[in-house]
Amino acid sequence: MVTKRLIPVIEIFGPTIQGEGMLIGRKTMFVRTAGCDFSCSWCDSAFTWDGSSKKDIRLMSAEEIWCELKQIGGNTFSHVTISGGNPALFPQIGELIHFLHNHNILVGIETQGSRYQPWFLEVDDLTISPKPPSSNMKQDLEFLDDILKNLEEHNRLKHVNLKIVIFDEQDFHYAKKIYQKYSQIPFYLQVGNPLITEQNDAVLAQQLLKRYNWLINMVMHDEVLKDIRVLPQLHTLVWGNKRGV
Amino acid sequence: MVTKRLIPVIEIFGPTIQGEGMLIGRKTMFVRTAGCDFSCSWCDSAFTWDGSSKKDIRLMSAEEIWCELKQIGGNTFSHVTISGGNPALFPQIGELIHFLHNHNILVGIETQGSRYQPWFLEVDDLTISPKPPSSNMKQDLEFLDDILKNLEEHNRLKHVNLKIVIFDEQDFHYAKKIYQKYSQIPFYLQVGNPLITEQNDAVLAQQLLKRYNWLINMVMHDEVLKDIRVLPQLHTLVWGNKRGV
Repeated sequence: MVTKRLIPVIEIFGPTIQGEGMLIGRKTMFVRTAGCDFSCSWCDSAFTWDGSSKKDIRLMSAEEIWCELKQIGGNTFSHVTISGGNPALFPQIGELIHFLHNHNILVGIETQGSRYQPWFLEVDDLTISPKPPSSNMKQDLEFLDDILKNLEEHNRLKHVNLKIVIFDEQDFHYAKKIYQKYSQIPFYLQVGNPLITEQNDAVLAQQLLKRYNWLINMVMHDEVLKDIRVLPQLHTLVWGNKRGV
Repeated sequence: MVTKRLIPVIEIFGPTIQGEGMLIGRKTMFVRTAGCDFSCSWCDSAFTWDGSSKKDIRLMSAEEIWCELKQIGGNTFSHVTISGGNPALFPQIGELIHFLHNHNILVGIETQGSRYQPWFLEVDDLTISPKPPSSNMKQDLEFLDDILKNLEEHNRLKHVNLKIVIFDEQDFHYAKKIYQKYSQIPFYLQVGNPLITEQNDAVLAQQLLKRYNWLINMVMHDEVLKDIRVLPQLHTLVWGNKRGV
């Protein structure tokens, strides 16, 4: 008997909009895996790795995940985003991708580029988000380079984008260096949310729009950052710090 | 002597972000032409056609426009958006597009699809925004169809997107019909701004985010609208109803 390899899932929700990055505004479902090899200081999904939501983790097969997606999303969707945590920890995500593709569903992945999986070559929208200095993480930029070279060799760069979250000027300079190295890859800067416990949505939105304006101004005066997009997190502007939207 | 055909320009500004549609967040310069064949009830750039800013209109050659773009944008940009009014009123925009391409600048155009110009085939990012019932305009959908068929015949659909502004449920149903007809073209719904005279930016942002949430909810429950993006106008969230940002 073949035992299906199970995926640790911490939440499944949608349909909703993708609130950030290359598919901003796109209708999608979300599957969020548990577990991360990083622990970014400002992580807005720390419940995936800090133990606080351990009881929510379910080990699910690709088929079980598909059934739950259909149960809550019905016939309203054609795209699924797999986020984390870091979904690149799990080779068995490949089975989920196959399963979704067989049902004519496009698949987006969000990962930091610290791990590689062969299924990277099959993802329709692969977002790689190297973590800047403010995260207090040490991103292995050589490993990231290997991943991107491999994607290029397999002619997959048109499915890839780089996204860097910016909290301060140091992050900005880090992002600029990465942009200069990979100027052929679509490049997104995203304004960081330092107020992940703020409960007043209107106050949060105003603060985030102010910080977004700050980031826009820095980019606009820059002669290096030209082919670039600067974005906020739309879901946070609309729904605040809530989970599952 | 060859007389260059001049373009009626009402404002040139940037660099700033493209606040809406397929290039949302992208760094770009704006050239706004004067004059429109439409007069949408809720137009947020009515000064381009209602006579209120007639004194600002300058007749400029492609080279003069380029010089002004360089003067204010320096070496910070690689993309120019030509908006209006309706830039498709002017055959001479073709010369501006050539001029910009010769300087390695990508060109986006925003037009409603009521007029056609041969230079549509050279635009890098062509946004066509048919106007829904709330505009009080009567869009000629057969003419729009001819434009899109022509773009398809010239293999240009990968440079095209459709964007429809939504104010109410009637607009939503109109957009749905167009989506069903052109499901192979990237499709954007944008939440309308009914508060174009609101001066309090925070009040405006909250109202627009509320309306954005309303539009998201309508789309999320819909079984027809699948491959779709739903977006706000980021510039209005950040800078309110100001001109020239």
